[in-house]
Amino acid sequence: MPSFNFQLQHQSDVSKARVGKINTAHGVIETPVFMPVGTRGVVKTLTQPQLIELNVPIILGNTYHLMLKPGMPIIHKAGGLHSFMKWDRPILTDSGGYQVFSLSSLNKITEEGVFFQSHIDGSKHFLGPIESMQIQKTLGSDIVMVFDECSPYPCTWDQAKKALDRTYRWAKICREFDLQEHQNLFGIVQGGTYADLREISAKSLVELPFEGFAIGGLSVGEPMDVMNAMIEVTEPFLPRSKPRYLMGVGTPRNIIEAVMRGVDMFDCVMPTRNARNGTAFTWSGKIQIKAGRYADDFSPLDPELNEYASQLSKAYIRHLINVDEVTGLTLVTLQNIAFYLDFMRKLRESILNGTLLDFYEKIIKIYPV
Amino acid sequence: MPSFNFQLQHQSDVSKARVGKINTAHGVIETPVFMPVGTRGVVKTLTQPQLIELNVPIILGNTYHLMLKPGMPIIHKAGGLHSFMKWDRPILTDSGGYQVFSLSSLNKITEEGVFFQSHIDGSKHFLGPIESMQIQKTLGSDIVMVFDECSPYPCTWDQAKKALDRTYRWAKICREFDLQEHQNLFGIVQGGTYADLREISAKSLVELPFEGFAIGGLSVGEPMDVMNAMIEVTEPFLPRSKPRYLMGVGTPRNIIEAVMRGVDMFDCVMPTRNARNGTAFTWSGKIQIKAGRYADDFSPLDPELNEYASQLSKAYIRHLINVDEVTGLTLVTLQNIAFYLDFMRKLRESILNGTLLDFYEKIIKIYPV
Repeated sequence: MPSFNFQLQHQSDVSKARVGKINTAHGVIETPVFMPVGTRGVVKTLTQPQLIELNVPIILGNTYHLMLKPGMPIIHKAGGLHSFMKWDRPILTDSGGYQVFSLSSLNKITEEGVFFQSHIDGSKHFLGPIESMQIQKTLGSDIVMVFDECSPYPCTWDQAKKALDRTYRWAKICREFDLQEHQNLFGIVQGGTYADLREISAKSLVELPFEGFAIGGLSVGEPMDVMNAMIEVTEPFLPRSKPRYLMGVGTPRNIIEAVMRGVDMFDCVMPTRNARNGTAFTWSGKIQIKAGRYADDFSPLDPELNEYASQLSKAYIRHLINVDEVTGLTLVTLQNIAFYLDFMRKLRESILNGTLLDFYEKIIKIYPV
Repeated sequence: MPSFNFQLQHQSDVSKARVGKINTAHGVIETPVFMPVGTRGVVKTLTQPQLIELNVPIILGNTYHLMLKPGMPIIHKAGGLHSFMKWDRPILTDSGGYQVFSLSSLNKITEEGVFFQSHIDGSKHFLGPIESMQIQKTLGSDIVMVFDECSPYPCTWDQAKKALDRTYRWAKICREFDLQEHQNLFGIVQGGTYADLREISAKSLVELPFEGFAIGGLSVGEPMDVMNAMIEVTEPFLPRSKPRYLMGVGTPRNIIEAVMRGVDMFDCVMPTRNARNGTAFTWSGKIQIKAGRYADDFSPLDPELNEYASQLSKAYIRHLINVDEVTGLTLVTLQNIAFYLDFMRKLRESILNGTLLDFYEKIIKIYPV
C-alpha cells in the first residue's frame, strides 16, 4: 500500500490558496476538495456507480451513525466500510464526537469520554478517544479524525478553553493508538471564536505528528466573517506541508473564502440535504425547483453542466418532486454533487492559472452567502 | 419512421409459447416481454440511465396519472412523454379506464365516458374513448390502448356482458380516432370470468384492425387457474400474426403460465412496488431483505446476476432499508427489474431451444404462486 502523503503543487500569488494532491491507499485526491457526506454507508439517494460516474474522489462516513447501525460487529465481519459498501475510493471518517455532543442524549462526560444514549432507540453507549480509534480502525477509513469536543456557539472563553484542553489530551491518546497501516490521523483545532484559544490549540496540536489538521468548531451558527477570522488566526500556525480541513463547510461562498485563507478540504451535508428539500445548486445560482414557475420551464436544470441530471428539464424534475417521486430527489442530489465537484475543479484551475480573484468575483455574485 | 410490425419468429412445439419481435419507431422489442411500469413519467426510484443500463426495452406510462399531474398542457408543451422524460425507447400507455374505475371517485358513467374526481385533490374530470385517444396522442406513446371498462371480480354475467359491449362500442370509436403516424392501437378483450363472454368479446374485437390485442380484466383477484382458463378460452380467437398482451400480470409463475398459453406481453407493478416493501425477486426465490437473518449475511443479493445491485451483499442492502435510506429501495428495484428481464430472456431462450418444459419446472419450484 502506498503511504499517505500530501504534495503541495502550487500556491496562489494573490491569496493563501493552494493546489495539491493527497495520495492514499485508495487513490489520489486533488485539493482543494469537497467530500460528499455518506453518513450511514451511502450518499443519500445515490448508488456508488452514480458517485463514480460523477467522479467523486472521496466520501465521508460518520462514526456515530455507523456504530449504532449496522453496528461494529457487522462492519468488522464485512471487512471494513470500503468492503461493506463496495466503495474502492478513499473514505474519511469523523470521530463521532460532534454527533455525540449534538445528537444524542448525554448522560455523563468524563475524562475518558462520553456516556450517551442513541437518538434512535435510547440504547446506552460510551465513546471516548480510544473507542473512537477502535471503531475507525474497524471502519478502515483512509483518513481518521481524532475524538474531539466541539464547543457550541456561542460559548464563553472558559468553556472553549476547557473543550480545547480536553481535545488536546484526547488527541494525544488518539495519536498513540495503533491504527491500520493505510490509515492516517488528523488532529482538530478547537477554540471557539477566540483568536487566542485558536492559537493555543493549533500550536499545541502541531507538536503531535498528525498527517493533517482540521479546523473544527466552525459552521455551528457563527457569522461568516467570524468563521473567516477564525481561519485566518489559525492558519499561520498550521504546517504548509500538511492538508488543512475545514469541517462541516459549507456554501460555495464559504468554501472559496476558506480556500483563499489556505484551507484544502471540505465536507458538508448541504448539497445532499438541500437536494431533498428541492434546492438545486447550479451555475445560475440556487434554484427552488418546486416553485410553480418551473412547471412549464423546459430549459435544462443547469445548461453549464453535461451531467445527465443537469441536462434534464426543470419542468420534468419539478414534476417528479411535486408528485413525491424519490427519483426527483436523486436527480437534484446528482446535480448538486456535480455542481460542487465542478466548482472545486474550476477553483483549482483558477488558482493554477492565476484567475482566482476573477473566479471569486463570479462566485460571490452567484452565491453571496 | 418505421411502421409497427410484429414478426413471429418461433412457435414452441410443446405449448402455445411464441418468440417474436415488435418493431416500433423507438426500437425493437423482443417478445415475450415484460414492461416495467413508469406510472408518472418515471420508474419509481430509478433514473432513465439506470433503465438503459438494465437494458429495459419498453416502459409503461399511465394516462390517468399523467393527465392529472403534470397535466396534458405540460406534456404537450414538452413535445410528448418521450421528450418530457428523456426516454428514447418504446412506451406503451394504458387508456386510463382501469384507474378511473378503480382509483377515482366516480360521479357518473355515460355512453360517452366517465365523470370522475381526482384521487389527489378531488378536481373534476371527464374521460371517455375520445378523450383517452386525445391524451395518448399527446403522450405520443408507441402503443396506445383503447378506452375500456374492466369488470371487477367477482361480477355477474350480466355486468360482464354490459362492460364488454360498452368496451366494444368504445373500441370502435378509438379505432376511428386519428393518432400520430408512429402510434399503434391495441384492442382489449373483456368478459370477466365467463368463457362465452371472452369468446364474444374476442371475436368482435378482432374484426377491427388493431395492431395487437390485450386480455384485460384479469389479475383482479381471481384464482390463478381461473386466469389461466380465461387466457385459454380467449387465445384461439386472437390472430397469430398480432402480439397478445396480458395486462397487469404478474408473478413469474403467472407469466410463464400465460406465455405457454400464447401471450407475448406483460406489465406489472410487482417488481417495483414489492421492492419498496423490501421484497427482492432473485434466482433463489423471493427474499424479504428486512429479515434479521440477513443482518450479517454477506453473500450477494443474487449470485446468478451480474448487475451492480445483485452483487451487493444482503447485509448492506438490509442495513440501508433498515435505516430508511432510499438508496436501499433503488437497489432492490434494480435487482427486481434485472431479475424480471433475465427471467424473460431465459424464457425466450428456452422456447427457442426447446427446453421450455424444463424451465417451467424450474420456475414453479422457485415461484410456486
